[in-house]
Amino acid sequence: MVDHQKVRTFTESIFQAIGCSETDAKLAADVLISADLNGVDSHGVARLAGYVRLYDHGRLNPKPNIQIVHETPSTATVDGDRGLGLVVAPWAMQLAKEKAERVGSGWVAVQNSNHFGIAGYHSSLALNKDMIGWAMTNAAPLVVPTFSKEKLLGTNPISVAIPADKQPAFLADFATTAVAYGKMEILQRQGKPAPMGWVQDAEGKPTAYNNAVKEGGGLLPLGGDREHGSHKGYGLGSVVDILSGVLSGANYGPWVPPFATAGFHGVAQQQVGKGTGHFLGAMRIDGFRPADEFKQNMDTWITRFRSAPAVEGEVVQIPGDQERNFRAERLKTGLPLNEKVIESLEELSKRFKIPFA
Amino acid sequence: MVDHQKVRTFTESIFQAIGCSETDAKLAADVLISADLNGVDSHGVARLAGYVRLYDHGRLNPKPNIQIVHETPSTATVDGDRGLGLVVAPWAMQLAKEKAERVGSGWVAVQNSNHFGIAGYHSSLALNKDMIGWAMTNAAPLVVPTFSKEKLLGTNPISVAIPADKQPAFLADFATTAVAYGKMEILQRQGKPAPMGWVQDAEGKPTAYNNAVKEGGGLLPLGGDREHGSHKGYGLGSVVDILSGVLSGANYGPWVPPFATAGFHGVAQQQVGKGTGHFLGAMRIDGFRPADEFKQNMDTWITRFRSAPAVEGEVVQIPGDQERNFRAERLKTGLPLNEKVIESLEELSKRFKIPFA
Repeated sequence: MVDHQKVRTFTESIFQAIGCSETDAKLAADVLISADLNGVDSHGVARLAGYVRLYDHGRLNPKPNIQIVHETPSTATVDGDRGLGLVVAPWAMQLAKEKAERVGSGWVAVQNSNHFGIAGYHSSLALNKDMIGWAMTNAAPLVVPTFSKEKLLGTNPISVAIPADKQPAFLADFATTAVAYGKMEILQRQGKPAPMGWVQDAEGKPTAYNNAVKEGGGLLPLGGDREHGSHKGYGLGSVVDILSGVLSGANYGPWVPPFATAGFHGVAQQQVGKGTGHFLGAMRIDGFRPADEFKQNMDTWITRFRSAPAVEGEVVQIPGDQERNFRAERLKTGLPLNEKVIESLEELSKRFKIPFA
Repeated sequence: MVDHQKVRTFTESIFQAIGCSETDAKLAADVLISADLNGVDSHGVARLAGYVRLYDHGRLNPKPNIQIVHETPSTATVDGDRGLGLVVAPWAMQLAKEKAERVGSGWVAVQNSNHFGIAGYHSSLALNKDMIGWAMTNAAPLVVPTFSKEKLLGTNPISVAIPADKQPAFLADFATTAVAYGKMEILQRQGKPAPMGWVQDAEGKPTAYNNAVKEGGGLLPLGGDREHGSHKGYGLGSVVDILSGVLSGANYGPWVPPFATAGFHGVAQQQVGKGTGHFLGAMRIDGFRPADEFKQNMDTWITRFRSAPAVEGEVVQIPGDQERNFRAERLKTGLPLNEKVIESLEELSKRFKIPFA
């Protein structure tokens, strides 16, 4: 277990070492540490070395000149100037909130960005203004459309954050696949098979092989197979891709660049747009009804759902509970970084002469 | 097979017979016939008798005074005055489009409405203005949250319609469950078991029993079980419920009234808002980038996805293809109304002295 403050300080220093401003480095580190605190280990400091690799390969601009390239009172497209998605997305969300403040809602498509960390971090930025926040992003292709043998979509997460009154906020934040790719990597490390319904092989057949995605197979959309609604997961992942990629002028579908060149999926030969795309939104609650009324009703919603009788040995959770439970625990215990992650941080420590251990 | 024009004329007459204006009756019939043409048989004229039952029970106002009760330049809440959702939703969508025309996007929450038919009809209304359309609605509880034994959510569909250039529009339109309830009813008629992963029994255990939902069980969220991401389907269905119900001031969660009193799920004892709720949205493409550019990129997206190698015996479809294929076929062959539906139409024919056969 490693204290999160220690990892945070180190992460900030690494981002500064590759040229980020202190403000940007603090923000980027906050997004990553939030993932680790919330139990989304795959999206936390485990990726710090990946961001540095992006920088090494000239795909990351540590001092981006983020700009609005097109706008109306409630919409905008932003060029992230190859900046860290961890920094570009909050910038875009701030713009969405300002638009919502003025005209009720704000929607910002982002082109020319990179991996933005956990979607829930960005959607949650709307909560302090009594707004509903939206965040989504496309990503490099790992997912097969229903009946396709070819991977054409990323795990394309979507997040919606909704404020409550005395209850904690509602936070939906999920990849539009049956399972996140990080879970496959865990099975690979453990040498365990995957449950059926997570992946298919190169022929498009169901498989339990934990390395199928690297060998021509693909992750299945949420729903798993057609009979269980995989066309719905495919549809939802497509909406995320189109709003994030096509609407913004970023890459989309099979052309979305991989997170870092260490990725096994190769770099797309062709570019149909600029970088990776995101889509952020903010809706002012009192654009629809008084915020107090709404938040009290949200408390009723949350407590009613929480009180549902659960199947034996389980509890009915509210979207966001899992992340909150992890956070409460890990603020006390520290972050359970695995050996490989610690190794990668120690390498960065050596390279940049910034103490970690 | 019954010619769709014949059913359309009859449906219009029935809506007029219960007091709808000619304009409203034509619109309401168009929504229902669209469902039948698109292959969504459960949401077409099969429900006409249900709307009449709603009227009989005083829950449907055939001459609603639909009103804006709260608004900003890009948002509004509309009171449907207990009108047909089939009419209230297009009214709200028109408002969303006008707002989008002026400030880039428009978002309208609707309270005090009834069942609005297929979500895809309403989202598609945005297409002719080069806008992306959104439509969702909550519905009476048939669905269990992950690990819950109690049904707290409706099948809560979500639809997003996105224009293309030479290619047909992208249209995602799906219930946030593993399967629509209509498919369970088909199995009941056929006396066949359900695939595992569609429903659970009253104890919260997986079951293939086709009548489980009526006997204390529930439909499973998209994803099926926790291991396959049911918490994601639960999260998505919850977002639809909150935007449609809580944000609008309609009922939500277990309190959403059933479609018609013939429903087996009983009428909620308590009301926490007004009627059923919807949420509609429109985003102007050129609020983000020139519409022509976008639509050409959508053509690229669509043709690229269509060209993916498919598993043997299948094709890779674009969201919306299935509906279009049904429509092309049924415009020629007519609607395959089943006996029970024809019976219900003949009863209406007798009661209102309007010829059907």
